[in-house]
Amino acid sequence: MVLPDLSDTIAALATPPGTGAIAVLRLSGPRAVLIADGVFRGKRLENQPTHTAHFGRIEAEDGRTLDEVVASIFRAPKSYTGEDIVEISVHGSPYIQQEVLQVLLRKGARLAQPGEFTLRAFLNGKMDLSQAEAVADLIAGQSAAAHAVAMRQLRGGFKNEIAHLREELIHFASLVELELDFSEEDVEFADRTQLKSLVAKIRDYIGSLLRTFQLGNALRTGVATVIAGRPNAGKSTLLNALLNEERAIVSEIAGTTRDTIEEVLNIAGVQFRLIDTAGIREAQDTIEAIGVQRTMEKIEQAAIIVYVWDVAAMTLAEVYQDLEAIAGKNQAQESGRPQGSPLLVVCNKMDKNPYFKTDWLLDPTAPDIPPYLLEGGLPNHSSLFAHRSSLLPVSAKNQMNIEYLKEKLLEIAVGTDVNLESTVVTNARHYAALQRADEALADVLTGLDTGITGDFVAMDIRRALNFLGEISGEIGVEDLLGNIFGKFCIGK
Amino acid sequence: MVLPDLSDTIAALATPPGTGAIAVLRLSGPRAVLIADGVFRGKRLENQPTHTAHFGRIEAEDGRTLDEVVASIFRAPKSYTGEDIVEISVHGSPYIQQEVLQVLLRKGARLAQPGEFTLRAFLNGKMDLSQAEAVADLIAGQSAAAHAVAMRQLRGGFKNEIAHLREELIHFASLVELELDFSEEDVEFADRTQLKSLVAKIRDYIGSLLRTFQLGNALRTGVATVIAGRPNAGKSTLLNALLNEERAIVSEIAGTTRDTIEEVLNIAGVQFRLIDTAGIREAQDTIEAIGVQRTMEKIEQAAIIVYVWDVAAMTLAEVYQDLEAIAGKNQAQESGRPQGSPLLVVCNKMDKNPYFKTDWLLDPTAPDIPPYLLEGGLPNHSSLFAHRSSLLPVSAKNQMNIEYLKEKLLEIAVGTDVNLESTVVTNARHYAALQRADEALADVLTGLDTGITGDFVAMDIRRALNFLGEISGEIGVEDLLGNIFGKFCIGK
Repeated sequence: MVLPDLSDTIAALATPPGTGAIAVLRLSGPRAVLIADGVFRGKRLENQPTHTAHFGRIEAEDGRTLDEVVASIFRAPKSYTGEDIVEISVHGSPYIQQEVLQVLLRKGARLAQPGEFTLRAFLNGKMDLSQAEAVADLIAGQSAAAHAVAMRQLRGGFKNEIAHLREELIHFASLVELELDFSEEDVEFADRTQLKSLVAKIRDYIGSLLRTFQLGNALRTGVATVIAGRPNAGKSTLLNALLNEERAIVSEIAGTTRDTIEEVLNIAGVQFRLIDTAGIREAQDTIEAIGVQRTMEKIEQAAIIVYVWDVAAMTLAEVYQDLEAIAGKNQAQESGRPQGSPLLVVCNKMDKNPYFKTDWLLDPTAPDIPPYLLEGGLPNHSSLFAHRSSLLPVSAKNQMNIEYLKEKLLEIAVGTDVNLESTVVTNARHYAALQRADEALADVLTGLDTGITGDFVAMDIRRALNFLGEISGEIGVEDLLGNIFGKFCIGK
Repeated sequence: MVLPDLSDTIAALATPPGTGAIAVLRLSGPRAVLIADGVFRGKRLENQPTHTAHFGRIEAEDGRTLDEVVASIFRAPKSYTGEDIVEISVHGSPYIQQEVLQVLLRKGARLAQPGEFTLRAFLNGKMDLSQAEAVADLIAGQSAAAHAVAMRQLRGGFKNEIAHLREELIHFASLVELELDFSEEDVEFADRTQLKSLVAKIRDYIGSLLRTFQLGNALRTGVATVIAGRPNAGKSTLLNALLNEERAIVSEIAGTTRDTIEEVLNIAGVQFRLIDTAGIREAQDTIEAIGVQRTMEKIEQAAIIVYVWDVAAMTLAEVYQDLEAIAGKNQAQESGRPQGSPLLVVCNKMDKNPYFKTDWLLDPTAPDIPPYLLEGGLPNHSSLFAHRSSLLPVSAKNQMNIEYLKEKLLEIAVGTDVNLESTVVTNARHYAALQRADEALADVLTGLDTGITGDFVAMDIRRALNFLGEISGEIGVEDLLGNIFGKFCIGK
């Protein structure tokens, strides 16, 4: 990436596109105030103190009044970007937004690239790279939990954790490097046992951060939850039961993504993207075959699979057939779950089946499988739901046990001890950097165990430090910048 | 309309809905600063001077940081509404917008009704009613001309004209009323001849304002231009030729209404809504009949009808047939054009017809109708395009004469001497009020001519004054307010 010219003054619409009461155009750079003064008729902004707002007109070159506006000045370095910023609050018509932006560009501003305001904030030391990334997450976040994690990251939580890890390692590295200077004297400034336990401690901590990535990823992108089962098993009724009260709340928030994904369920602030499927039986004709294929594709991409068993109509043997088909698709995934995505078997229509009582499901002393369900033979697939607690009895129609199902989904998605107050890794880039730092530290331990020379140990420590430094942007990551800031909207 | 409670403090999202870099929430009312201080963590806003901006956090009741924000204070009366205003600039995620708005509402603000900020500006004397209406026009305006007219109205142009008219009338009325006090003495303070010429002068002026309404209406709503003609006459090619360079420009501006109306053509800042039609022949089957019916409905609603004559394939007689059908639908309209909407006959495919030369169309000494075109007989419809200048030769395919067609359309839509610098009546409410004022003044003149007593003359003058006062809102128009401000977006 060639970094954009920082000596330019950039301009962009900062508020969402479209029509509203007002819209805000933002100028940032060394000539921000000068350019604003070239079009603003009112007090001379150049002479106004920072953090003040001024009523006036924006005038085009031909003397036309483009709008009556309020211009706010934020002088370097006390601004978002660390540069001089002028924010111009105009009437919110797309026409005016365009006209005022165009006159600013004609007066010498350059249209900002996506994320360029935040890039400048990073380059001017107003925030580190993890904080800059949090800005994008904050704007994209659609749930309380995603918001809380991004906010913590923006406010420097993650940055501080990483800084702490690096400090400990730097101390360690300097001791080892000191030994190198005195190598002929064969001294050990760094007690090897103590050092090993320190590295192990740091690896433990990195490991705990790495484990939060499942939650972090779920928070950022939502949990893809596929609801599978035969036709009439009650999949849609279950979907409706789950969404029951949430539907209205989801609709209230503009911009939720209900168009592209099937339905969004918010459980304790975590977004589940519920994906209804066609069916998983052998297809009778071409159109049905396409439906089955789509279902199987969705199962492959699922983070959680909810299988709906109609206990009033299907035997356990039939269920096993379906689960076998699902298991064939539910392969080990890149996410590092060798056993594939978690599967939850929901026993629906409990109200209709006299043999299949909730009692049985919850009573550990009850006989293993009720005889009614064994018709048609029982293949040996008990491993698929080895423990009966993965069988979850509900009656979607009567809203029975739906809350319990939600708790289960939450537990599967983010674990039992969700702590949004602690640092959560949400970013694949951070995850990769932590993993590589961890690998370098593993090499350090191996090196210490095999009595490798100090210079190699020091090199591995420096490698770990570099990977950690990438997260905050302290270590040169110029190639990354285009990738990170290109994902922003223009104006941020 | 029951006016909303002005002692409330109102809150709303002021920027367009959706995702952006930032969004602005607006609080207005006596408790605006107090409510903001209840959620803002940073400097105490209560102690800050007006027109200053402050960085801080918004905190929910449970201590969660909802966002890092900039809060700007505008103290009464130096604010948009004339009340205390706090504008909170948040990160532009729909989630944050909703959360921050909700906490403001929980802290005692009320969600603003549509247009309530501007209603308060009017009620607090920050602007008159015509200016308040201009705010809505300004936000809705999508062309340079619509914008210029709304801006002039916002900046008090129309308000001043009306104030001037009212002053003259008030002077006149007070003289007549003075006579009433001395009625037994039979004096005439108001010279009748002078008064008549004054009233005539005012009526002239009102008449000139009324005549701008066609332009004003065109600017506000665009000019509905129906393109009619037989299949393959080249209607679509003409549409494309007209839109040729404009298409890209229209698309650049977000929020243009290309989805609901067919195509938008911008000529010298005036928007023409070009409406392509199916055909106007007698229908052969049901589906075709529906097409014809729709065409006729569109012709009824058209402000301008462009009839496309394929001069390579159709005789004048056939054209007359079509024009007769159009004339049947093109009735006198409410807009006060007794002869129906203007009709422009475009002679297309000029490149293909050796008989039908541009020369003929433009040369006044040429014989009236070329013989080739008279095949099939010539009904007496010359009145439909009595003058050859209403025949406009083009070749859509070769872009021949398209610019001239645009000039013609502009001339028909808004007249030859468009002066956007002068006041233009854009608002049907203002138009109606001016009309009724004019009627009252006509009664004044009749009264003066027939020697009616002074008290009746005075009553008619007061009527005229009242109607003019309605425009600015000086005369009680409480019933109107709901109607006017209900059309605003929330947040303005």
